[in-house]
Amino acid sequence: MSPIDLPEPPYTVVVFTSRLRSDLDDDARAAYDRMSARMEILASEQPGYLGVESARGDDLEGITCSYWVDDAAAVAWKQVTAHLLAQERGRQDWYADYRVRVATVTRAYGKRA
Amino acid sequence: MSPIDLPEPPYTVVVFTSRLRSDLDDDARAAYDRMSARMEILASEQPGYLGVESARGDDLEGITCSYWVDDAAAVAWKQVTAHLLAQERGRQDWYADYRVRVATVTRAYGKRA
Repeated sequence: MSPIDLPEPPYTVVVFTSRLRSDLDDDARAAYDRMSARMEILASEQPGYLGVESARGDDLEGITCSYWVDDAAAVAWKQVTAHLLAQERGRQDWYADYRVRVATVTRAYGKRA
Repeated sequence: MSPIDLPEPPYTVVVFTSRLRSDLDDDARAAYDRMSARMEILASEQPGYLGVESARGDDLEGITCSYWVDDAAAVAWKQVTAHLLAQERGRQDWYADYRVRVATVTRAYGKRA
């Protein structure tokens, strides 16, 4: 998806960097892709959601940035039941490695298409 | 590249989300890839550099997160002359669209491979 416009800072970004397991078969990869799509939709329905940007290359490495009005909104999304279950499956079945970093955006600028 | 380990927060992340122009020919794309590689090396030599994570898919969309000990280190890197020239070429020749967001990381957790 393209870079997105957001309101003026401050707001919260959750940076999720991951590497998928290299031994996922086609079924597991399809299940992962379905879950990712479901979670993006569910996130977009949460209070305080601002938007998401994500990129995943051929090499199993991906970065997803989700943006929230404040830290409390990001914390609440982490605790949504369906999301907790998805996180558990991610840890068990899909990700070889991941990092989550929660940060407060203080400045933003860019070039619009 | 894989998710990386970093010291305990706080530290600064610069989230760079971009979409390349769809009309880049092979030479322009190769020039872009060379410049990206050079800038990653140059960044790693700057004071206060902690690391970088990046992902770019087939669809021209990419996200690069560079991590710095503090905001001042991130600002100093933005002003390095060779980097300023690269930013100018990026705006003129390579990117259809981009956003830069500077943020202070307050929490981090993950699963190590």
